[in-house]
Amino acid sequence: MTEVQKINAESLKLKTYAGEPYLLTPGPLTTSLATKEAMLRDWGSWDADFNKATAHIRSSLLEMAGADSDTYVCVPMQGSGTFSVEASLATAIDVKGKALLLMNGAYGKRAALTLDYLKRDYIVLDKGDYLPPSPEEVDEILTQNADVTDVFLVHCETSSGILNPLKEISNVVKKHGKGLIVDAMSSFGGVPLTVSEVPFDVMVSSANKCIEGVPGFGFVIIKKTLLESSKGRSHSLSLDLYEQWKHMEKTGQWRFTPPTHTVIAFHEALKQHAEEGGVAGRHSRYSRNRDVLVSGMRALGFETLLDDVWLSPIITTFLSPDHENFEFKKFYDELKKRNFIIYPGKLTEVESFRMGCIGQIDEYVVLDLIKAVEESLAAMSVDGV
Amino acid sequence: MTEVQKINAESLKLKTYAGEPYLLTPGPLTTSLATKEAMLRDWGSWDADFNKATAHIRSSLLEMAGADSDTYVCVPMQGSGTFSVEASLATAIDVKGKALLLMNGAYGKRAALTLDYLKRDYIVLDKGDYLPPSPEEVDEILTQNADVTDVFLVHCETSSGILNPLKEISNVVKKHGKGLIVDAMSSFGGVPLTVSEVPFDVMVSSANKCIEGVPGFGFVIIKKTLLESSKGRSHSLSLDLYEQWKHMEKTGQWRFTPPTHTVIAFHEALKQHAEEGGVAGRHSRYSRNRDVLVSGMRALGFETLLDDVWLSPIITTFLSPDHENFEFKKFYDELKKRNFIIYPGKLTEVESFRMGCIGQIDEYVVLDLIKAVEESLAAMSVDGV
Ligand SMILES: Cc1ncc(COP(=O)(O)O)c(C=O)c1O
Ligand SMILES: Cc1ncc(COP(=O)(O)O)c(C=O)c1O
Repeated sequence: MTEVQKINAESLKLKTYAGEPYLLTPGPLTTSLATKEAMLRDWGSWDADFNKATAHIRSSLLEMAGADSDTYVCVPMQGSGTFSVEASLATAIDVKGKALLLMNGAYGKRAALTLDYLKRDYIVLDKGDYLPPSPEEVDEILTQNADVTDVFLVHCETSSGILNPLKEISNVVKKHGKGLIVDAMSSFGGVPLTVSEVPFDVMVSSANKCIEGVPGFGFVIIKKTLLESSKGRSHSLSLDLYEQWKHMEKTGQWRFTPPTHTVIAFHEALKQHAEEGGVAGRHSRYSRNRDVLVSGMRALGFETLLDDVWLSPIITTFLSPDHENFEFKKFYDELKKRNFIIYPGKLTEVESFRMGCIGQIDEYVVLDLIKAVEESLAAMSVDGV
Repeated sequence: MTEVQKINAESLKLKTYAGEPYLLTPGPLTTSLATKEAMLRDWGSWDADFNKATAHIRSSLLEMAGADSDTYVCVPMQGSGTFSVEASLATAIDVKGKALLLMNGAYGKRAALTLDYLKRDYIVLDKGDYLPPSPEEVDEILTQNADVTDVFLVHCETSSGILNPLKEISNVVKKHGKGLIVDAMSSFGGVPLTVSEVPFDVMVSSANKCIEGVPGFGFVIIKKTLLESSKGRSHSLSLDLYEQWKHMEKTGQWRFTPPTHTVIAFHEALKQHAEEGGVAGRHSRYSRNRDVLVSGMRALGFETLLDDVWLSPIITTFLSPDHENFEFKKFYDELKKRNFIIYPGKLTEVESFRMGCIGQIDEYVVLDLIKAVEESLAAMSVDGV
């Protein structure tokens, strides 16, 4: 552990493993030591003690979404977040349905690819790399395409870091009486999102994002009537959300072997999430991280891809400087030497890189990062960005 | 930690978490403390260090199967073992193909259910709860059904514990020139299975069985030419084995977020597997466990479901005694109080329960189990089984 890290770790009780690099990414991210330590035992996956943990997780997530358990259910699903998105799309969209996909990055595109596999009909509004879809556009498309049954939107499009205008768009979608499917993978738990504000039909997220667990499963919060009506609709035994739900309701167990250690780590992570003040507490820490990051990087001469109004407290995209000595791979290695791991960009048009604001990091860690960026630029002989 | 456990832990350096119950199950099972401790740090899933671990796992598994990397590839897949079986069936069986499923328990049945989802044609040889399919029967069916393209067989059918005659059947399948898909979920790494003995086309297993990792992913060893020919065949984005492979070959990374901690735990578990003498070493410990278990339980009056010749070193099914005071739930709770967790039966016809021989347990642990069984029977006033 470097001296700086030790001080930070003490300063905010951020207990990470001694000396390991900070993951400034949208997940897998830096988790607390307590979360990881929860994995130091083995659990029988059909034992009552483990089932209790699963039940607690499901009800806590419903609560976090402000969803009452008469109307909504929470169903976890093994695999990465993409598995849960696929399971949700296969469940929510009828085989004769037609989706409108609002796209502005890689995860909107992935939904389209998923629907290609599922052989479901869809149209898209593709805003490119960094513009948000507007409520007016959505209104117009839905007016002109009455046969659309469901609208899919990514809350925080992690490929740019943009926080899409979910609330405004959800109003339009509901005005037209369409189903609303939200990919809140990277935002749920860190950005307010409740059914009273955003009356979604389906919301998808995963263990290793803002709730700060380790990767291994995702979860879906879905209207009970919709889930009930989807019986027999799934294309896949493993990803059959309806059957997973039915089995859990009946036995308290996951339908197939759960990632036990990941589940128990998540159970512990939820406790810490509550202790930090729930979504509000986490949102304010992540927002501080973002503010310190953006102002620090701008002071060094870097530019953000997005205007301030669209910057999420999840991850920020910076444009690669136009200096002949700047090379992402070198920059990555220099930062890694200084114990920070960042993320390559995911844009189609311009060179960029991303830095995450989520996970067990605070503004002091971010200040260290800024210092490390400055040193890395010097090491690369990039004088003036 | 009870005194007995402490002695055992010392006797064979089985380092489990102090005081946690032994999981006498077919997985999730009791893993070593070193394996769990490997999860005490976070990994960037696109970082070179993590990619190295993935590459090492893939090549070690190929080696364990005696498969050379010109002919076979190993592809891990997120989710439980069932996800990998589904991905394999969708990959290996052409949409116009027809499978012969050799069934004698729950996992053979699950393969049929999977093919129902996949809309693939199949016929079955169903031997009920505990009889093995014979090579002669398979020969006859394949002679009479020339349109069968692939044969599916479970190596150790974990629902009874039977070790099916894989080698003999594989000879017949290959004589007929059919594809061979083996579900070796519960046996691979603990029972010898190499391509020179059993020339399979596809073999499926998972992290949390005989290699003694924690649950979160499975893996498939598959003929490269078969995988190459399967491009575009998958019904599912997430379970597309071909695309997972292509992505891994190109980038060294998993296609979607991997269960990082589970992967690193498995990497550590593989090291211990090698140190124990590989498959041979593990097979001999598990076989000793089984022998001590069966003779101890028989001495108490219990009967095994299977004849000795079919007993696997993985898990053993015992018939529930016909005593009026014997009740599985009570028996389970009494054993749990004594720090042993066993498994309910999975038979359709008779009352039974199962006890596993795999995981970080040795013959001394099994001797303690026998003692605990004796005490539990006394506590239930079951005098004489
Ligand atoms: C918005 C969004 N959707 C989907 C995914 C896919 O999740 P996973 O990588 O776990 O499959 C991600 C991952 O970062 C994401 O940020
Ligand atoms: C032979 C066999 N096949 C398939 C499975 C399914 O694996 P999972 O429970 O991980 O989905 C198991 C699980 O025990 C098994 O023993």
